Amino acid sequence: MLFKVEMTVRIPHDMPAEVVADIKGREKAYAQDLQQQGKWRHLWRVAGSYANVSIFDVKDNAELQDLISNLPLFPYMDITVAPLCRHPSSIREDDR
Amino acid sequence: MLFKVEMTVRIPHDMPAEVVADIKGREKAYAQDLQQQGKWRHLWRVAGSYANVSIFDVKDNAELQDLISNLPLFPYMDITVAPLCRHPSSIREDDR
Amino acid sequence: MLFKVEMTVRIPHDMPAEVVADIKGREKAYAQDLQQQGKWRHLWRVAGSYANVSIFDVKDNAELQDLISNLPLFPYMDITVAPLCRHPSSIREDDR
Amino acid sequence: MLFKVEMTVRIPHDMPAEVVADIKGREKAYAQDLQQQGKWRHLWRVAGSYANVSIFDVKDNAELQDLISNLPLFPYMDITVAPLCRHPSSIREDDR
Amino acid sequence: MLFKVEMTVRIPHDMPAEVVADIKGREKAYAQDLQQQGKWRHLWRVAGSYANVSIFDVKDNAELQDLISNLPLFPYMDITVAPLCRHPSSIREDDR
Amino acid sequence: MLFKVEMTVRIPHDMPAEVVADIKGREKAYAQDLQQQGKWRHLWRVAGSYANVSIFDVKDNAELQDLISNLPLFPYMDITVAPLCRHPSSIREDDR
Amino acid sequence: MLFKVEMTVRIPHDMPAEVVADIKGREKAYAQDLQQQGKWRHLWRVAGSYANVSIFDVKDNAELQDLISNLPLFPYMDITVAPLCRHPSSIREDDR
Amino acid sequence: MLFKVEMTVRIPHDMPAEVVADIKGREKAYAQDLQQQGKWRHLWRVAGSYANVSIFDVKDNAELQDLISNLPLFPYMDITVAPLCRHPSSIREDDR
Amino acid sequence: MLFKVEMTVRIPHDMPAEVVADIKGREKAYAQDLQQQGKWRHLWRVAGSYANVSIFDVKDNAELQDLISNLPLFPYMDITVAPLCRHPSSIREDDR
Amino acid sequence: MLFKVEMTVRIPHDMPAEVVADIKGREKAYAQDLQQQGKWRHLWRVAGSYANVSIFDVKDNAELQDLISNLPLFPYMDITVAPLCRHPSSIREDDR
Repeated sequence: MLFKVEMTVRIPHDMPAEVVADIKGREKAYAQDLQQQGKWRHLWRVAGSYANVSIFDVKDNAELQDLISNLPLFPYMDITVAPLCRHPSSIREDDR
Repeated sequence: MLFKVEMTVRIPHDMPAEVVADIKGREKAYAQDLQQQGKWRHLWRVAGSYANVSIFDVKDNAELQDLISNLPLFPYMDITVAPLCRHPSSIREDDR
Repeated sequence: MLFKVEMTVRIPHDMPAEVVADIKGREKAYAQDLQQQGKWRHLWRVAGSYANVSIFDVKDNAELQDLISNLPLFPYMDITVAPLCRHPSSIREDDR
Repeated sequence: MLFKVEMTVRIPHDMPAEVVADIKGREKAYAQDLQQQGKWRHLWRVAGSYANVSIFDVKDNAELQDLISNLPLFPYMDITVAPLCRHPSSIREDDR
Repeated sequence: MLFKVEMTVRIPHDMPAEVVADIKGREKAYAQDLQQQGKWRHLWRVAGSYANVSIFDVKDNAELQDLISNLPLFPYMDITVAPLCRHPSSIREDDR
Repeated sequence: MLFKVEMTVRIPHDMPAEVVADIKGREKAYAQDLQQQGKWRHLWRVAGSYANVSIFDVKDNAELQDLISNLPLFPYMDITVAPLCRHPSSIREDDR
Repeated sequence: MLFKVEMTVRIPHDMPAEVVADIKGREKAYAQDLQQQGKWRHLWRVAGSYANVSIFDVKDNAELQDLISNLPLFPYMDITVAPLCRHPSSIREDDR
Repeated sequence: MLFKVEMTVRIPHDMPAEVVADIKGREKAYAQDLQQQGKWRHLWRVAGSYANVSIFDVKDNAELQDLISNLPLFPYMDITVAPLCRHPSSIREDDR
Repeated sequence: MLFKVEMTVRIPHDMPAEVVADIKGREKAYAQDLQQQGKWRHLWRVAGSYANVSIFDVKDNAELQDLISNLPLFPYMDITVAPLCRHPSSIREDDR
Repeated sequence: MLFKVEMTVRIPHDMPAEVVADIKGREKAYAQDLQQQGKWRHLWRVAGSYANVSIFDVKDNAELQDLISNLPLFPYMDITVAPLCRHPSSIREDDR
């Protein structure tokens, strides 16, 4: 089941550089692990911003909440979610 | 080059049913042709709405404008566009 | 799987009264049928408005889209959707 | 008398972890007590966020204010309230 | 129980003058009747607009919905509602 | 001359508790004094918030500015103002 | 007593040209009469728009409402109002 | 003197095709004439929309108003204006 | 050439009182000097706020930028600007 | 390929003056270097603000992201991006 997730990062200006680096490092590892598992299907940078557009593929809303709330950057992001499904004009049964 | 395109359809309430049917028929054929060509990479319905989230793959901004402005439903949609590029945490060189 | 759905009705002022009555009649029958099936778990009027707050219980996003897009009033409503899941402070395993 | 209450938590980034833990612990106990009393009828997490959708069942506006303003997280939340009542298409006399 | 209600009138430009006059006449009679009953406690014009600020005094949310949805101008107004209660700095037990 | 004034309190999270208590104490005394004088005609809490809806009765805009800008909480509130006057459907010559 | 009033004109596209011309003619005469009386102190066009910024000088809110609601274009304008008073840094006692 | 002007076209759906064609033809001629005169310095399409971003070079605000209000599409566009001037980091004295 | 400028002051809560006093003192002197020169034509307080509505009279956009960016409170204000010109219904050739 | 980029600077009030000066110095050098290369085609100050309107000329979205995210002021700016292309009414094949 697919969800579009958009995340905009807002790191506090007074956070120490090494703390930021640590969080970003864990964020990257976590994001890549979820991509390897096929749960984070797409991950794009929005050009000109510190934001991304993502497609998550989860079994239900609870898993979506679990994956997103465990993002190391979760406390420092504005996040919007939209549930997706097959479009009647799509040429694919299961567009991933 | 990828763009996220979001379209919300707002057909005027007083448009005759056969005109609506004709426009929707041409919209579907057009959308499927662009998908076949690989230019309309993804097309999802936003659940609970008459809207879609799409990923276009075009060679430049001019082609994006050409493809979108020729949509049969173009005069009846609210459309937003965001340029995308590779995310540094993506596990794929070219995430499509 | 639960979703909060909020619907605000905006019937065009020039729609003939008998057409409005017919649509509302079918909307009511449809809403009550879905409630009987347990798919439309809660349906409340927002006091002072022509709007409702609803909780849908569906198996996936596709069923949510199917149920909502078949509402007789669908073309005449502003609709927002939010995916819900269990809250860690809830005293019920499955709050319906 | 029912109210939909939506709460989004915004804890200041520089609040010490033990203070946060204390407030969250008291918030959970308080929320569960109100649920046990039947005043906090429903409590759902909005998937992908640090927010909830709740249904309160109170005897009047003053009790609503009393319950909400005593939430331990009250100073750190954006809160919206909507008064609810029976929907004419509801199949239940008193939808809780 | 008090509610602040704000109403902005938006009469369609193509509504015949005699229909408008009839609706406004019934609206005025209805508003004055509710004021006589003490249910519409205050009614002020917002200077420079076709809008009002009102205070309703009702026994519960259901009565509020009943009173507002029966306004003859109801289909032609944008309406917002806020539940009120005693302010701890008010010098009156029951500020009406 | 009446004005509707809405105030939402936003006290900085790092303000010392005794400073907050002092400001709130002076705010309450000031609000009660203005009510005694008849200049702050109504003061209601918006249920579920740290906000109020007020009706001020002043001789002109300058007095409104004077009264509001001297509120001890003035630097910590979002404030909106709307000028009011008699509504043609009001049953009272001077609705206070 | 001064008020800033901003008006944006939105004439319906299907209004007959001679009706529009008549309304505009009466609007101009009305605006010039109020300027002659000193009640409409300033009237500027916002460059690049069909909108104006105005300063009204009235004896109270009721007169402001009277003057604005009698504008021939009143039903076809979005209007915002802000009460003004002397600024402590103004070099004039009564800045008109 | 430069201004950024953004225009979004919203042609009413029920305008006859030949009227639309006539207006668009005159708009194009007008836009090209102003470009030839150097007053409409830049004109770009926003990709994926029926909108443009323009740079006007005029002698004062009055000329800006004159040029924009005479656009054949003026009654059918949402227009925003921002005054521009030399940026201290620009490498050109007069960036056109 | 006239511009409407609206400024809302947002001084950080943790700025030392003597720094605030110094900035405000310089702001007042600067504002009065520009009024004496005739460049800051009007300066009004918006009643019930820490904001003003001003009319600047400058020779071009560059001078507007120069005057505004040198305001001692410039870093602590939200500022909006609108270019003004003669209104065709104004009774004055040069409404100042 | 052209993009309109709008940047509003929001430097934290508590950043030390010498840090600010250093960032601004590097920002200016960076901006001038990109202008020399022809990648930052236009750079204008929005009069009355700490903001700019820019036109970037890049080979694709990835280069846009690269140029913008390396701005020394990037963490302290609100940035919006719009893809541009040739307007059919433009008199230039390649309006730069």
